[in-house]
Amino acid sequence: MKKGDKLYEGKAKIIYATDDPALVIQFFKNSLTAFNGKKTGEMEMKGAFNNAISSALFQVVEAAGVPTHFAEKLSEREMLVKRMQMLPVEVVLRNVAAGSMSKRLGIKEGTPLAFPVIEFYMKNDALDDPILNDDLAVVMDLATRDQVALLKHRAHQVNDTLSKFFDDRGVRLVDFKLEFGMFDGQMMVGDEITPDTCRLWDKETNSHLDKDRFRRDLGDVAEAYQIILDRVTKAS
Amino acid sequence: MKKGDKLYEGKAKIIYATDDPALVIQFFKNSLTAFNGKKTGEMEMKGAFNNAISSALFQVVEAAGVPTHFAEKLSEREMLVKRMQMLPVEVVLRNVAAGSMSKRLGIKEGTPLAFPVIEFYMKNDALDDPILNDDLAVVMDLATRDQVALLKHRAHQVNDTLSKFFDDRGVRLVDFKLEFGMFDGQMMVGDEITPDTCRLWDKETNSHLDKDRFRRDLGDVAEAYQIILDRVTKAS
Repeated sequence: MKKGDKLYEGKAKIIYATDDPALVIQFFKNSLTAFNGKKTGEMEMKGAFNNAISSALFQVVEAAGVPTHFAEKLSEREMLVKRMQMLPVEVVLRNVAAGSMSKRLGIKEGTPLAFPVIEFYMKNDALDDPILNDDLAVVMDLATRDQVALLKHRAHQVNDTLSKFFDDRGVRLVDFKLEFGMFDGQMMVGDEITPDTCRLWDKETNSHLDKDRFRRDLGDVAEAYQIILDRVTKAS
Repeated sequence: MKKGDKLYEGKAKIIYATDDPALVIQFFKNSLTAFNGKKTGEMEMKGAFNNAISSALFQVVEAAGVPTHFAEKLSEREMLVKRMQMLPVEVVLRNVAAGSMSKRLGIKEGTPLAFPVIEFYMKNDALDDPILNDDLAVVMDLATRDQVALLKHRAHQVNDTLSKFFDDRGVRLVDFKLEFGMFDGQMMVGDEITPDTCRLWDKETNSHLDKDRFRRDLGDVAEAYQIILDRVTKAS
């Protein structure tokens, strides 16, 4: 697999072409960002942690029947993935109120939700990723009505699988964000599944084992990512 | 009908009890407010305009088969209505991008939408009426899943009826906000349908004939409400 031109650089990853037009390399940066890039930092092992965690979790999700873009972990910080057409929508699923939901709707952080709640956000930094509803996503041509239904179905499947997976490892899956794309006419989970994109709380202590340690200056960021990596990769 | 105690005072209306426990009097104030009460004003004929306009429009909507709380126009500024249990949700239907939608999602004001779009907002001044989606409305116990479906159905019915009604009178129904309540097990449109709660643009000139004249300091607020009253009450 020959690494080609840089195709795209985001806040946490860089995408490179390969000699196979259907595949790209996703390189995990060591940068930490929050609040739509307004807060930034750097963490030496972050790219390695997230590549390893996401590689493991994509395989867990695939095994449960949810297509993902994951092809292969190439190196410490490189993942080979299918080259998708991304949908410009972030899909958030919440089991427990936290973060922006708590703030926006006045629900105390940590309140369990009666059922898993899905939110769509438009991927648009200039507009600060505004929240959408189904009608808005469709009328703005961000997704078709059928894609909206499938996005929800896939998010619920991922939640069922990963909630159980993390619970077995002493971790509560509070919420997570997914991005999806189309490959060969099929919708697949793309991007990453990591402590950057999930809220993960220790089941015993409620300790935050995710990017909130950085967002909220709680310290021990690397230690939290290491704990998640250890639990994700240990035999259940 | 005996006017009893004041039960509730909002930004634009006061509700009084009557000697019939199933009915209340809705008094239309002359106050103008915008931006969740941060901008306020007063307009001499406003209560009279809105009572007359809303009385007419409730009857148009009722005639199309949509239940409303309207019982009778009692006087220049008083309307007799059914005493409902209100749902704490504002239902917005948009035919054309404008106002908060344009700002939040970066869509040029005046852009026609490919289909009528519905948005739900939580009625909560302290939180600035945050936007919801279906899941959020249900998980927060603001409405049941069935009520969410019926709210949308009713909003579409009102739109079909009033878009045609206004179009026949040279006015474009850009968007509107409805509030609903429960009376005797039935969901009904409550509150008011007026230039305070609708965006109404002259079909020929695109002149704003609604509260945006106040919000945006366009002048001739009373003239706009008078035009709407004249067009609503003239024979089509």
